[in-house]
Amino acid sequence: MRGNLFAVAVDLVVLTVRAGELVTLLVERTVPPFEGQLGLPGGFVLPHEDLTDTATRELVEETGLTLTSHHLEQLASFAAPGRDPRGRVLSVGYLALVPDLPDPQAGPGGAPSAWYPVADVKGLAFDHDTILAAGVERARAKLEYTTLAAAFCPPEFTVSQLRKVYEAVWGVTIDPRNFQRKVTSTPGFLIPTQQRVSSGRGRPAQLFRRGPATSLHPPMLRTDG
Amino acid sequence: MRGNLFAVAVDLVVLTVRAGELVTLLVERTVPPFEGQLGLPGGFVLPHEDLTDTATRELVEETGLTLTSHHLEQLASFAAPGRDPRGRVLSVGYLALVPDLPDPQAGPGGAPSAWYPVADVKGLAFDHDTILAAGVERARAKLEYTTLAAAFCPPEFTVSQLRKVYEAVWGVTIDPRNFQRKVTSTPGFLIPTQQRVSSGRGRPAQLFRRGPATSLHPPMLRTDG
Repeated sequence: MRGNLFAVAVDLVVLTVRAGELVTLLVERTVPPFEGQLGLPGGFVLPHEDLTDTATRELVEETGLTLTSHHLEQLASFAAPGRDPRGRVLSVGYLALVPDLPDPQAGPGGAPSAWYPVADVKGLAFDHDTILAAGVERARAKLEYTTLAAAFCPPEFTVSQLRKVYEAVWGVTIDPRNFQRKVTSTPGFLIPTQQRVSSGRGRPAQLFRRGPATSLHPPMLRTDG
Repeated sequence: MRGNLFAVAVDLVVLTVRAGELVTLLVERTVPPFEGQLGLPGGFVLPHEDLTDTATRELVEETGLTLTSHHLEQLASFAAPGRDPRGRVLSVGYLALVPDLPDPQAGPGGAPSAWYPVADVKGLAFDHDTILAAGVERARAKLEYTTLAAAFCPPEFTVSQLRKVYEAVWGVTIDPRNFQRKVTSTPGFLIPTQQRVSSGRGRPAQLFRRGPATSLHPPMLRTDG
């Protein structure tokens, strides 16, 4: 077979919203290259794995996620010569959108990992700044024309929680009344439950769960924010 | 470095519209595996190439394209164990949208290639049916919310030519008057030239070139067709 050989890794852009901020999971590298620097979680594809198997395995290992409401999609592959000083490594970037999770626990022998605000992240190992930027832009764009924002929320959530997801991912302030009107008038986006929660003032807020709709017509545009 | 090693190939979904049909470029395989079957054009990544370099080189080699008005984007990577009987090969699929081109000429030692209607294609080598389907779906979706349909057209084209691109890619019939109104009212989609062409009957049609717009607001939805 012609062609030179590559190691193939999967690197994960895991995004969630914590305390009103878009955050991503980063791992401190404990071995060369880039020892001591932060990088995206990930690992090499094992002999019998397909790419999504590797991404799912790494996501579970890194977050302890029980894989119910998360969203996982392939972003793109990165293989510039020289991106890894050890030799040719192709990295398949994956984007995971998850609800707010407890702080990650490193497994036996695992590297320390933690959530970092996306706005503060730079200087990651390898070309991980580029992969992270691709993941953040994909998430920002998908919130415009899909219902994926709900993937950041717990199973039942308020319109205000959903709005704070949009505000955190896009880095904008959104008018609460316009937002309420838009999302509740989109068929199949939000299903009302019989529950209400009190936020401490005013009338207790209605709880919703995610409906069957996957796309938004009309879209919610960042420029409307 | 941990992990098993892969050969990395780039496979191209090259789409254009010929005689009102969406067609793709296929190559007859002259060597095993899948000898004698049709497959997507492509090849292995060379030692000093990045993925886009390989895709561009293969596109030029396979189509003789002079790379002015084409569109080339990465689709996704495919690496299921067993997709290539020779061993582990990761294929990075690329989508190219090109204007109607002359029939391809095989270079020295090149395999015979030709344009085939997408609707008739099945049973391609490897998992190329899957990669082709991903490319066709990406093109169909992008015609909804971008101005990419113009990438299928020559530098100057009529609204009728553009409509026939939409009809061929989506496999639908579109009302000419609604289409004319939509595309000419989208700012920056079409720039009128001073030229007209006669189609043999009626008033000669206005020629346009592609404007600076890249996205369509509102989108043109397949379901409106």
